[in-house]
Amino acid sequence: MEKNMDIELSSMFVIFGGTGDLTKRKLIPAIFSLMHEGKLSENFTIVSIGRQEKTSEQYREEMHEYVKEFSRFPLNNKLWDNFIKRIFYKNFDFTSNNQGYKDLDLFLETMDNEYSTRGNRLYYLAVAPEFFEGIIRNLKNNNMVCKSIGWQRVMIEKPFGSNLKTARILNNNISKLIPEEDIFRIDHYLGKEMIQNILAIRFGNSLFEPLWNSNYIDNIQITSNELIGVENRGAYYENAGILKDMLQNHLLQMLTMIAMEPPVDFDPESIRDEKVKVLRSLRPFTSASLKEDIVRGQYGPGTVNEAMVVGYRQEERVSRESNTDTFIALKTYIDNFRFGGVPIYIRAGKRMDTKSTEIVIQFKKLAGINYYKEFDQIGSNLLVLKIQPEEGFYFQINAKKPGNDFKMEKVELDYCQSCKYLNDSPEAYEKLLLEAIRNNSSLFTRWDELEYSWKFIESIEKGYENDVSNYPNYAAGTPGPTGAVDLIEKDGRQWWSTEL
Amino acid sequence: MEKNMDIELSSMFVIFGGTGDLTKRKLIPAIFSLMHEGKLSENFTIVSIGRQEKTSEQYREEMHEYVKEFSRFPLNNKLWDNFIKRIFYKNFDFTSNNQGYKDLDLFLETMDNEYSTRGNRLYYLAVAPEFFEGIIRNLKNNNMVCKSIGWQRVMIEKPFGSNLKTARILNNNISKLIPEEDIFRIDHYLGKEMIQNILAIRFGNSLFEPLWNSNYIDNIQITSNELIGVENRGAYYENAGILKDMLQNHLLQMLTMIAMEPPVDFDPESIRDEKVKVLRSLRPFTSASLKEDIVRGQYGPGTVNEAMVVGYRQEERVSRESNTDTFIALKTYIDNFRFGGVPIYIRAGKRMDTKSTEIVIQFKKLAGINYYKEFDQIGSNLLVLKIQPEEGFYFQINAKKPGNDFKMEKVELDYCQSCKYLNDSPEAYEKLLLEAIRNNSSLFTRWDELEYSWKFIESIEKGYENDVSNYPNYAAGTPGPTGAVDLIEKDGRQWWSTEL
Repeated sequence: MEKNMDIELSSMFVIFGGTGDLTKRKLIPAIFSLMHEGKLSENFTIVSIGRQEKTSEQYREEMHEYVKEFSRFPLNNKLWDNFIKRIFYKNFDFTSNNQGYKDLDLFLETMDNEYSTRGNRLYYLAVAPEFFEGIIRNLKNNNMVCKSIGWQRVMIEKPFGSNLKTARILNNNISKLIPEEDIFRIDHYLGKEMIQNILAIRFGNSLFEPLWNSNYIDNIQITSNELIGVENRGAYYENAGILKDMLQNHLLQMLTMIAMEPPVDFDPESIRDEKVKVLRSLRPFTSASLKEDIVRGQYGPGTVNEAMVVGYRQEERVSRESNTDTFIALKTYIDNFRFGGVPIYIRAGKRMDTKSTEIVIQFKKLAGINYYKEFDQIGSNLLVLKIQPEEGFYFQINAKKPGNDFKMEKVELDYCQSCKYLNDSPEAYEKLLLEAIRNNSSLFTRWDELEYSWKFIESIEKGYENDVSNYPNYAAGTPGPTGAVDLIEKDGRQWWSTEL
Repeated sequence: MEKNMDIELSSMFVIFGGTGDLTKRKLIPAIFSLMHEGKLSENFTIVSIGRQEKTSEQYREEMHEYVKEFSRFPLNNKLWDNFIKRIFYKNFDFTSNNQGYKDLDLFLETMDNEYSTRGNRLYYLAVAPEFFEGIIRNLKNNNMVCKSIGWQRVMIEKPFGSNLKTARILNNNISKLIPEEDIFRIDHYLGKEMIQNILAIRFGNSLFEPLWNSNYIDNIQITSNELIGVENRGAYYENAGILKDMLQNHLLQMLTMIAMEPPVDFDPESIRDEKVKVLRSLRPFTSASLKEDIVRGQYGPGTVNEAMVVGYRQEERVSRESNTDTFIALKTYIDNFRFGGVPIYIRAGKRMDTKSTEIVIQFKKLAGINYYKEFDQIGSNLLVLKIQPEEGFYFQINAKKPGNDFKMEKVELDYCQSCKYLNDSPEAYEKLLLEAIRNNSSLFTRWDELEYSWKFIESIEKGYENDVSNYPNYAAGTPGPTGAVDLIEKDGRQWWSTEL
């Protein structure tokens, strides 16, 4: 049993984009953490591929610094020595060089023999999206995937396509090369502890399911505020904008976890079947609802954490007349039995006044409560799921304020996971790498999920084709454009603060 | 408006039993706290009546020490000077001396003029139960109640009667003298913050009512454990036992708050109407259920807080062959629509291993949860209301344990009221005195509540008439007789620990 598991988990991590930020700050430290926790087989190696010339020794030295800085665990020499010797660097131009792939395959086979990784290879494409298809084609042409021995899987970073059409083409092309079950499309939010916890909480308790429908839920709010701007990713962001950087993936994924029906079981396909149903029920925007129910924005110069920061148009590799959105707030609906008529409010922005991702379920006030004059000024019941940076959840409810009068106050029934576990929460990338090795695809996006989320995005983008925005329309370090507040207040509701 | 309130709240506290423990430790410090908080009118006085000879000056000096020790607020001189001059002591034998009542009335009228208390009198009977009727008769005969000016109310300590028959006789006699609405029967548990909070929480939120019925609740547990023994109240306890000291009043009152239907409004009569309905639906014991569903006990010698303590039969003023119960555990049902079939487990005892009063609502495991193999070992959802010494409540639920595996753990969604407010929670007696002045009788027991609770007790006592118990059957400082555990475990359930 133990032996079989070890065979299954034996693996070679083959990272395209080995000198990129993601590899250095996230992937290599995550693999080290997994080893530290004993989650990996004894048999594993890492082969990083990049276009820079350097030796494995040089690469290892660099990685030493990054693991020291970014791993959850302190470096200890014994462990590090065992880790470092398994890291190799191969330099070739993976964008075109067919001979390079042949050489790589030979090298991987040698390593495979040496480290008993049994043919299992996890190809991680930590490269720009335009290279996804070419790399997979090269892997296929050189028989480096779909081999008769072991498993070979491909992990693909976002974005997968840039709209419905290009995503379909990309998928169509890739799916001719490797089967869907070997494709692991990353949405790193799915690796976050509290996102996984949503399923555990919703379906592992008796309290939630009876209340989890339009009879009891007034509205759902999903907020993802960042303090940072686009940093050094201006070129990427000019194409993506908030729609493709956040909404199409992370925000819609969170929504599916909140809104999905109970799956038949927790197998990946069962879970993803239910998630797709939510996306299919998501009401697309019309030209009318677009005007009413969406507010977009772009940040101008302002003050964040007491420091002056530039506006989006002044960021590096950003057009001085850019119309790219760095903020969005919208209202939509899931047109199904469970949530029919329950507004879903979503907002996300860069350079906001807080850093916080959270989901708020606001419950309806039971009719009875209104009949008691003592409960006149009473607050709404909320369930708040704190995704990051704090992890945990709380009910905001009403209770009697201690004292000689019958006065009510808001209190929090709180579970602070990040207080309890401090730094014990694994990084999202640890989980994603581990689950890919374990062949658990539930933390990855299936093609049909992507397809329906792109459809939803398309209904928004279409409406803006001929729009020229009057940007910037909010200052960095603020809660975004005032229209976002009007958007919800005209419904007689409010955004719930992202602070406990 | 303010003026009218002041007239209503003007009051003279007339305490029979002015030298007793209750007066010194609870009542006088409570009145001081109310003054400190500005809850009293400027116009108030305290007249304490006792059979010991002493002057008002002597009495005031004594009270100074008690207020210093037992008030929630630190004594400050200015406030104390204003307080102390309003305290008077009258010495006469209130058990028989009719002339004493006449003198008292004259004195009270003088005070009334001097302190503008407008004829409002709150008579507090902090005396042994055998004197209740006599005092009220004397008050009536001397026209000291039901006067044409102001209000006169009588607060009566427990126990009200010693069984259904004597309670009926007492009530019958008293009700010929003063109307029900002037009688304030004390159950000091009703003055506890968390007991009052039960109504606020249940009816001021949307989360509870939908789950608050036999569809979702598996069982209800009410526990009241004390570390102390009978202390210097052996004579009282020999007559009362745990049945009349705890079950007939405090425990059944807690049950009514948990189980009552939403009242029409929060007026005292509306609330008490609903509480009575619960008591009427309480299933009485039969000779069969008595054997199955009740376990009684009496403590023997043992160790509490690392000190050796004597058994009940060795306590002062207790018979060496006493069969009095100091522990009880029972199962009963509320035979109504809401709670039909939901077992109610109640246990209370002296000299237990913990000091804790709490109510646990255990929710049924939704069928769906059982279908997921990942939730195999999952715990039950509990709502725990902590009444004393800690005040607060929490949900015990299941969540994913942070980490790279899908493991579940129990977590608490916690609101610790006593942590938040520290010593800000008023003493029960403050509330009760204040609410009696305010004519809010919802914190007091109406006659029909008493009558039905005595009926329930009678169904138990009847079955024991010819019983000779093999006492003692549990050692002090333990969780009580083992039978109490069997009582619930034979139903496939367990007592939930009283520790968070």
